[in-house]
Amino acid sequence: MTSPVSPEKPRGFIDRTGAQADAERAIVEKVGAVYQQWGFERLETPAVEYTEALGKFLPDLDRPNEGVFSFQDDERWLSLRYDLTAPLARYVAENFDALPKPYRRWAAGPVWRNEKPGPGRYREFWQCDADTVGSASPAADAEMIAMACAALEAAGVERGEYRLFVNDRRLLDGLLEVLGLDPRQTTARVRVLRAIDKWDRLGRGGVVQLLGPGRKDESGDFTPGAGLSGSQIESVISFVDPDVAFSGSPSMKVDTLRSHPLAQTEIGRAALKSLSEICEGLKSLGRGAAEYQIETSIVRGLEYYTGAVFEAQLIGEGGTNFGSVGGGGRYDGLVSRFRAEPVPATGFSIGVSRLAAAMQAQSQAQERGPVVVLVMDQARVGDSLAIAAELRAAGVRAEAYLGAGGMKAQLKYADKRHAPIAIIQGGDELAKDVVTLKDLKRGLEISHLAGEDREAYAKLREQVQQEVPRAQLVERVKKMLS
Amino acid sequence: MTSPVSPEKPRGFIDRTGAQADAERAIVEKVGAVYQQWGFERLETPAVEYTEALGKFLPDLDRPNEGVFSFQDDERWLSLRYDLTAPLARYVAENFDALPKPYRRWAAGPVWRNEKPGPGRYREFWQCDADTVGSASPAADAEMIAMACAALEAAGVERGEYRLFVNDRRLLDGLLEVLGLDPRQTTARVRVLRAIDKWDRLGRGGVVQLLGPGRKDESGDFTPGAGLSGSQIESVISFVDPDVAFSGSPSMKVDTLRSHPLAQTEIGRAALKSLSEICEGLKSLGRGAAEYQIETSIVRGLEYYTGAVFEAQLIGEGGTNFGSVGGGGRYDGLVSRFRAEPVPATGFSIGVSRLAAAMQAQSQAQERGPVVVLVMDQARVGDSLAIAAELRAAGVRAEAYLGAGGMKAQLKYADKRHAPIAIIQGGDELAKDVVTLKDLKRGLEISHLAGEDREAYAKLREQVQQEVPRAQLVERVKKMLS
Repeated sequence: MTSPVSPEKPRGFIDRTGAQADAERAIVEKVGAVYQQWGFERLETPAVEYTEALGKFLPDLDRPNEGVFSFQDDERWLSLRYDLTAPLARYVAENFDALPKPYRRWAAGPVWRNEKPGPGRYREFWQCDADTVGSASPAADAEMIAMACAALEAAGVERGEYRLFVNDRRLLDGLLEVLGLDPRQTTARVRVLRAIDKWDRLGRGGVVQLLGPGRKDESGDFTPGAGLSGSQIESVISFVDPDVAFSGSPSMKVDTLRSHPLAQTEIGRAALKSLSEICEGLKSLGRGAAEYQIETSIVRGLEYYTGAVFEAQLIGEGGTNFGSVGGGGRYDGLVSRFRAEPVPATGFSIGVSRLAAAMQAQSQAQERGPVVVLVMDQARVGDSLAIAAELRAAGVRAEAYLGAGGMKAQLKYADKRHAPIAIIQGGDELAKDVVTLKDLKRGLEISHLAGEDREAYAKLREQVQQEVPRAQLVERVKKMLS
Repeated sequence: MTSPVSPEKPRGFIDRTGAQADAERAIVEKVGAVYQQWGFERLETPAVEYTEALGKFLPDLDRPNEGVFSFQDDERWLSLRYDLTAPLARYVAENFDALPKPYRRWAAGPVWRNEKPGPGRYREFWQCDADTVGSASPAADAEMIAMACAALEAAGVERGEYRLFVNDRRLLDGLLEVLGLDPRQTTARVRVLRAIDKWDRLGRGGVVQLLGPGRKDESGDFTPGAGLSGSQIESVISFVDPDVAFSGSPSMKVDTLRSHPLAQTEIGRAALKSLSEICEGLKSLGRGAAEYQIETSIVRGLEYYTGAVFEAQLIGEGGTNFGSVGGGGRYDGLVSRFRAEPVPATGFSIGVSRLAAAMQAQSQAQERGPVVVLVMDQARVGDSLAIAAELRAAGVRAEAYLGAGGMKAQLKYADKRHAPIAIIQGGDELAKDVVTLKDLKRGLEISHLAGEDREAYAKLREQVQQEVPRAQLVERVKKMLS
């Protein structure tokens, strides 16, 4: 006999089960229903694409092609998708003439990143995206933001428990122009964007280093900086500092920005015009300062964004920030990789696993398993199957025990399943045409008394276990569960 | 500028969109809800596993390791899962002590096969599985079959439109023993099973060849046969011939089989005992001849089944058979690859894409898109956004047009979206505080009259287009849609 194989998963991958998996799937269903209601069409592209069709838009990576899982087939390289946007661009280009334009689609599914795994950082996770391709109108961006609000609310995040932060990357381009830097100097621009994006993690000090000469981290690794001068750094920092609170409405914030020197640049003016129209659109859609804010520090990691960017954050009690649970923005260059003409697009992506984890951290919901019907006599397993079927027909989640264990093993099984009730019909019960219902939740609550106060325990045990007529089984179980 | 990338998918992969994608997802939701109701827990394992953890259980393949997509990471080989059962075995072995036993789980997700694609044969498709691990009881098999019935019905296949075929592979082992063949002669046994499994595709003649010396197909490829003698072949054929109809109940069929010589073998007796208990269990669960039959020709392609096997088929009008939409069976060896002790298990898998395709082939449902609110003046796009929001709040799927086209382009867009209604509020309508509702479906119906009978057309056009007071917008739209 060969030695047994070791049962293990590749590192960075996890199994999701029970309530955790249900929560993620419920988010996808609820968010998808909102996207659908807003006129978006479901699209499911393959997990696998030609590597060259995915392109080099991988987020947060200095070495773009290294973050994907790739393999060869028929001499061509294939990769697992790293997001749902790159496959969308391929799909739109492939079906350009047949698609209605603007083309609105939504999609949900796993994506894969061949990155170093870390705490809470997995190599496979779900996204749930909506995109509008072929509209340059800021109304399309406004729609994305308002729909993100509706999606979060449908997923169970109440108004006031989340905030959408909105920015336009061209504001920073205007600022760089004012500071005498050419925004077409791609390397410096990208380094400035990345530096700002790291504020949450590194704080002001780290960002100052990354805007200037660069930064050496604790491990000794050196990240080259954007090479800005001291006064340039000061201007950027004071423009993006997220700690400078602004209490007015989003459109007041846009008005305030109009007096900044960047408003004199062409690109800065375009950004402000777009932001202003987004605010108007959101007003028409019934959304205001309670749901979103203009926030100049939001840049988003993905390099392909070209204008407006959005980020959704959960706000816990006392203002605790659970961090980003989704984001998006305008990307006008992605589809044009496949076609000569530019195709404007805007989108929003919800990080399903992250949102589920953040919501679970806030709630204390108890997992509830099925009602378990015990089997006291293997020759009568059919009776237990029939009782479970009867309960299911009445809408109760129920199952019969199908192992080979005795009474004790079966009750232990029911506990492991988080069963609220165990149903017992042994020979005595059968003769009397009754069944015993055991309230396992109550049983657990009083179990500590067993050793402390035997008399009280014996009394309370009656609440836990009751005989009911067989004919009243369903009714009594439903009452116990309600 | 670099030349544009070609927008194409790897061969054998498809995009699913709109009604087709919705149909597949709806099946997963409805089937999953049934599994959940029966006490099964959702489990989501990664798409990627260590190649050696998946093992060599790939179905229908003479060269087991070649049917998977594999790649190297950190010097170890990873593969995309080819089904949901092999990852389940890994999960159970990895968490054996913590899991309740029997362990019931369900799972849904894509699986990948690195096979030659063909018509209707893709390299990525969805499965939706339920498995009970740790129960050797035929009651667990009965539960699988009854739950498959409930799942198909929940997915929209009515009673009488499907049939579950049930068999036990050990019947064949008993038959081989009676014929003087050692069932432990793995190669011959597997070839017999594979030959029978090909009845649908090759017919009796092809099966006879495969049971005997072997078969050369049209391309000249030779498949070696099981090497049975003429009389042995005759015995096998007469035992499994699916064309010999049996009109009695499943338990009558079991009784009939008891008089077959294979009932004298130990393994044949075990199979009949198990089938008999499955019939009893199904009776307790309220299922009978209308939903399932014992059918000795069902073997299922997967080599890992060890006893009972099931297959679900859709029956069209006039008895048309749409083929298998799901299957399963008992596999007692899969988990034991990882552990010394044997772990009995049984499961059922629904082929989601196949079921959706078969159901779609039977129905003629028309796709219906969202209500589209046109934009007659770009400066008033906010009004259109607000109308769409108002309709959505009333439960109507609606969107505003967000492109840059004129009236004609917008109506063409609405047609492409399969929009039932277009809503128009130009300057005139605004002044009168009305909106125009255009019934696009009715418009399409009468469009042929335009060239034939202009008078009748002009009259009917009034039905197509109507002005309604702005305040009655929602009410009138809902009436038009109902």
